[in-house]
Order: sequence, then structure tokens, then C-alpha cells
Amino acid sequence: MMTSTTFLGTGAMGGVLAAAVLDAGRPVTVWNRSQDRAQWLGERGATVAATVTEAVTGAEVTVVCLFDHRSVREVLDPVADRLSGRTLVNLTTTTPDQARELATWAATHQIDYLDGAIMAVPAMIGGPGSAVLYSGSATAFDTHRGLLDRSGASSHLGADAGLASLYDLAILAGMYAMFAGFSHGAAMVAADGVSATDFATRAAPFLAAMTGSLAGSAAVIDAGNYAGEGQQSLEFTRVALETIMQASRDQGVSTEVLRPIHDLVHRQIAAGRGTQGSDRIFEELRRPR
Amino acid sequence: MMTSTTFLGTGAMGGVLAAAVLDAGRPVTVWNRSQDRAQWLGERGATVAATVTEAVTGAEVTVVCLFDHRSVREVLDPVADRLSGRTLVNLTTTTPDQARELATWAATHQIDYLDGAIMAVPAMIGGPGSAVLYSGSATAFDTHRGLLDRSGASSHLGADAGLASLYDLAILAGMYAMFAGFSHGAAMVAADGVSATDFATRAAPFLAAMTGSLAGSAAVIDAGNYAGEGQQSLEFTRVALETIMQASRDQGVSTEVLRPIHDLVHRQIAAGRGTQGSDRIFEELRRPR
Ligand SMILES: NC(=O)c1ccc[n+]([C@@H]2O[C@H](COP(=O)([O-])OP(=O)(O)OC[C@H]3O[C@@H](n4cnc5c(N)ncnc54)[C@H](OP(=O)(O)O)[C@@H]3O)[C@@H](O)[C@H]2O)c1
Ligand SMILES: NC(=O)c1ccc[n+]([C@@H]2O[C@H](COP(=O)([O-])OP(=O)(O)OC[C@H]3O[C@@H](n4cnc5c(N)ncnc54)[C@H](OP(=O)(O)O)[C@@H]3O)[C@@H](O)[C@H]2O)c1
Repeated sequence: MMTSTTFLGTGAMGGVLAAAVLDAGRPVTVWNRSQDRAQWLGERGATVAATVTEAVTGAEVTVVCLFDHRSVREVLDPVADRLSGRTLVNLTTTTPDQARELATWAATHQIDYLDGAIMAVPAMIGGPGSAVLYSGSATAFDTHRGLLDRSGASSHLGADAGLASLYDLAILAGMYAMFAGFSHGAAMVAADGVSATDFATRAAPFLAAMTGSLAGSAAVIDAGNYAGEGQQSLEFTRVALETIMQASRDQGVSTEVLRPIHDLVHRQIAAGRGTQGSDRIFEELRRPR
Repeated sequence: MMTSTTFLGTGAMGGVLAAAVLDAGRPVTVWNRSQDRAQWLGERGATVAATVTEAVTGAEVTVVCLFDHRSVREVLDPVADRLSGRTLVNLTTTTPDQARELATWAATHQIDYLDGAIMAVPAMIGGPGSAVLYSGSATAFDTHRGLLDRSGASSHLGADAGLASLYDLAILAGMYAMFAGFSHGAAMVAADGVSATDFATRAAPFLAAMTGSLAGSAAVIDAGNYAGEGQQSLEFTRVALETIMQASRDQGVSTEVLRPIHDLVHRQIAAGRGTQGSDRIFEELRRPR
């Protein structure tokens, strides 16, 4: 018999997660605080539960995708005994410490706990670009791999339940920085009457291509060898950033997004590393500031 | 007869540009300040000139790829009369104003001037990922399109010679921001013993996928409609950034790369826009600061 799965929370993300499992022909029960937001899943074959208790009773796997850690605790605390001996997968975005807290709570109640972080937007779920990172119970991951893969390519990062959230937030740091850099560039060309759409046509393929160089940067960082061949020096990067900042000022654009990057580079140069590779800013970031 | 092309500067970039044209079976002359750095091109069939004057005399098109604007002026000023009536393509990285200055200089000497910005690293030249942006003389671009396409996909942005440099610097702003965000994320996971290589395996495909959302952001910016459906609100982004910053501090990582992005978001919220889309930071950046 196929695993019976319950989804708690059918918002923008939880709804498409449940739909992807339904579409695979598996039995699905859904619950949402505002029940009307779950009806469309009922029409597609899900059992719509009126209460959380009803929803989780009998489900082998319960998948939670709610607003935040607090709403997860509010919804799960009253049904802890019902989840005992079952698997709980939490796809709500939380901090690593919150994920660890929930793992401890789950252990107390003999619940097999898997924490997950969805590296996708709702429209990508079930498609090729979607990935979900998991950490916590390896048994839960291995046993329910077929189910988990409905949401996207799944991988398990380790037994520490906080790891998936940690990766998630670390990757999102990269995304928000990239988005801010894109807005900065769009503002620079806008001053000359160029549309953001035209700019995106040029910028997006280049940025996508440049993600191909991150593995090389990572190898440099892991080796700690910033003096090897073919690296762009900190001195070169400083000049490049100063040129971009000057052109930004000329275009009437704030330099605030670029200034801290310049300053990271500058501090490494001031420490006598100017001829070394620019990936050294990794070292400079590993200090609370 | 095929266009005779001269390359001034056969450094890391100029060398592969000349090689790509040679490989297409076209006649090429090269000059480099340190002549030994041009010899390998001689062995591949290029004429190695001993002086700049010798190099440019008779060439229909002269392509310059030197260190910076100053070295370009040093090399070209003495041979201005030889370039008269010919085409000059400058692929050296400069500011928009420097490109415009060279365009004015070229016009004075009846030189047909095209400014270019290479959106690639040397290893990509001639391959599918390479793109070169041009601005300035449309006649030069159209006449020599076949030659230019040897370096990468070429496009012409407009008659203002400064446009290619402006796009270049604006796109590089995005790249440096993305790289800094990647280093930030790598530092976050490093505190838990995760290698940068493992992190890059997860982060790079996600960032590449997210470049797919830039066209959507651009459409929002161009329409100036930050209140439309499906946008991530400034309030949501602020909470996300604060969560990432708190987790960064917990990992002993400086928040300096993210703080200005948070502050841009915060200022828009303080101006009463909290429920509007996060692409509004574009508006906030269009103020000198
Ligand atoms: N959307 C994305 O692109 C995306 C990507 C990756 C991760 N995520 C994460 O996925 C999670 C859900 O996001 P979403 O986009 O689906 O958000 P959403 O559309 O706002 O849905 C939020 C869900 O949480 C429920 N909820 C909120 N507070 C509650 C409470 N106190 N008690 C019970 N239920 C409560 C909502 O119920 P009501 O319908 O009754 O309000 C709704 O089901 C978040 O942690 C988000 O960070 C989202
Ligand atoms: N490499 C890249 O990834 C890349 C990407 C896009 C754009 N670019 C741009 O391409 C241009 C060249 O970069 P590159 O990577 O080829 O640099 P490079 O390897 O350092 O080469 C610099 C070239 O400039 C020459 N040069 C420097 N100062 C000179 C002077 N005063 N007089 C005459 N020649 C002088 C050098 O001659 P010597 O050999 O005698 O020193 C050499 O030919 C730069 O503007 C760069 O920003 C490079």
C-alpha cells in the first residue's frame, strides 16, 4: 500500500507540494487553517480534514509547510501524541536553531523528524529546476525518498536537523545579494534611458554563466591557496569596484550595495594580500562584524 | 579579399581574441609591448609586428585590448594619422566617459570608432557562452560583423560610444554582488565544517535558476507597478534578511554584505511601502548616496 501523507498548510507552497503528490496517484489528506484554501485539492482527490487531529490521525507521514516556526509549534504541539511513531517532515522556513529545537521536541515524542528547505518557488515544484535539501533522520529520508522526490530533487545533508536551514539561509544570502546587484545595475543604465528589461536580457545570461565559476572559487577557498595561478587579484578587483562605483555616482546611483564589498577587498589589501586572489574575502567575512 | 585585422595587445584576453580570428583563416597582424608574448600567435600564422606603426599600417580594422584607458591613449596617440579612414575597435575595459573621450578623439582623426565590452573570460572566447557588447559606429559594426562574431555573440547597443562600457560596469556590479553573496554563504556553512565545494554544488544551480526571475523583476520595474500580484513584499524580504543576518552572527560571520540590502528594504518600508514588491529597492538606489 502507498504511504498515506498529510499536508498541514496549503498556502502558496504547501498547496503545490500536496498537488504534486496527488498527481502521482498517492493518497493525500490536507488541512489548512482557512479551510476554503484547501478545497481545490479536495476537488483533485485529496481528503480535506476539518481539524489538525483528524488530518494527522493515521497518516504515516505528515508534511508541514506553514508560515514560520511559531505557527508550526502552535499547530503541532496539541497533536504530539498522535504523531508518535510516525514521520514528520517540516518544510517551513526556519533558522537552524529552530529546526534543532523542533528535532528535540520530536525526539521527546518519539517522532521521526526530517527538516527540509525548498530551493524553488511554487511554480517550479515538480519540474526539473526544483531541489529540496533535507537534514535530520536519515531513516525517514531513505524510507520516504519516493514521496519526497515528488517535490523536487532531494538530498540529505546530515543528521543535524539544522543543516538544511543553514544551507537554505546561506544560499538565500547569495540570492539576495545577486538581486540587489541586479537592481544596482538596472539603476545605472536607467539613468541613460535603458529599460530594466533590456538590461536583464544582457545581464541574466552572463550572471547564469558566471555561476559556473563558483566551483573554481570554492576549490580555491577549500585549498586556502589564494596565491595560485589564474586568480583575479584583490588589487584588480579593487580597481574594478572603484571604477563601477565612480560610474554609479556619475549615473546618480547610490553605491551602498558595492561599498561593503569594496571595503572587504580593501581590508585584505591593507593586510598585505593585494596580489592574492579575490576569493580571500571569504576569510575576511569569517569575523563577526 | 578578407579584412586584414591588427590586434594591439596580446595579453590574456587580446591573445585569445587574435587566435579566434586566426583560427577562422583570416589574415591577422599582432603587436604586443613585450614581443615575446606575441610569438605563439606568430607560430599559428599571424604576422608579428615590431612596432605599433608597422602593425596598423594597411590594416582595415585595428582591435585594441590593453590594460586600461591610459595605455590605449599611449599606444594610439602616435599613430592617429595611420588609423584615419580605417576602423578602430576598442575592447579595453574603460568607464563610459573614457569611451566617449576616445570616440571624440577618433572623430577628430576621421577614424570609424566602435567601443566594445567583453562579457566573458579568456577561456570562453569563441565558445557559446561568450558575448561582446558594442556601441558607437553602427557602420563599423555592420560592416565587420563577421569578424566581430569570432569573439562571441555580438550586439550593438547604440550610437553613444559609452553604452557598452555602461552596460559592462552595470552587469559587473551584479556579478561582484553575487560573488560576495556566495562567499558570505560559504562562510556561514564553513562554521559547521561544510566545504565551500559542497556548498557550491547546491548554491550554483539555484543561483543560475534564479537568474530566470530577473526578467520578471525587470518587467515590474519598467511598469513601475510594485503593487501587482505575486510579488514578494518588502516586509517579507526584511524578515528573511533579518533571519539570515541573525543566523550569520550565530555562525560568526560578518553581516556587512547584507546590511545595506536590509537598509534599502527598510527605508522603503519606512516610506510606507511595506506591502509592495521588493523590486522597489531599484527606486531606492536611484539616489546618490
Ligand atoms: N513561496 C515560496 O516561494 C517559498 C519558497 C521556499 C520556501 N517557502 C516557505 O514555505 C512556507 C510557506 O510559504 P507560502 O509561500 O506557502 O506562504 P503562504 O502562502 O503565506 O501560506 C502560509 C500558510 O501558513 C498558514 N498559517 C500562517 N499562520 C498560521 C497559524 N498561526 N496557524 C496555522 N496556520 C498558519 C496559512 O494559513 P491561512 O491560509 O489560514 O492563512 C497558510 O497555509 C514558508 O515558511 C516559506 O518561507 C516558500
Ligand atoms: N581577462 C579577463 O577575464 C577579461 C575579461 C573582460 C575584459 N577584460 C579586459 O581586457 C583588457 C586586457 O585584459 P587582459 O586580461 O588581457 O590583461 P593582461 O593579460 O594583463 O594584458 C594587458 C595587456 O596590456 C598591455 N599593456 C599594459 N600597459 C601597457 C602600456 N602602457 N603600453 C602598452 N601596452 C600595455 C600588456 O602588455 P605587456 O604584455 O607588455 O605587459 C598586455 O598586452 C583589460 O581592459 C581587461 O579589463 C579582461
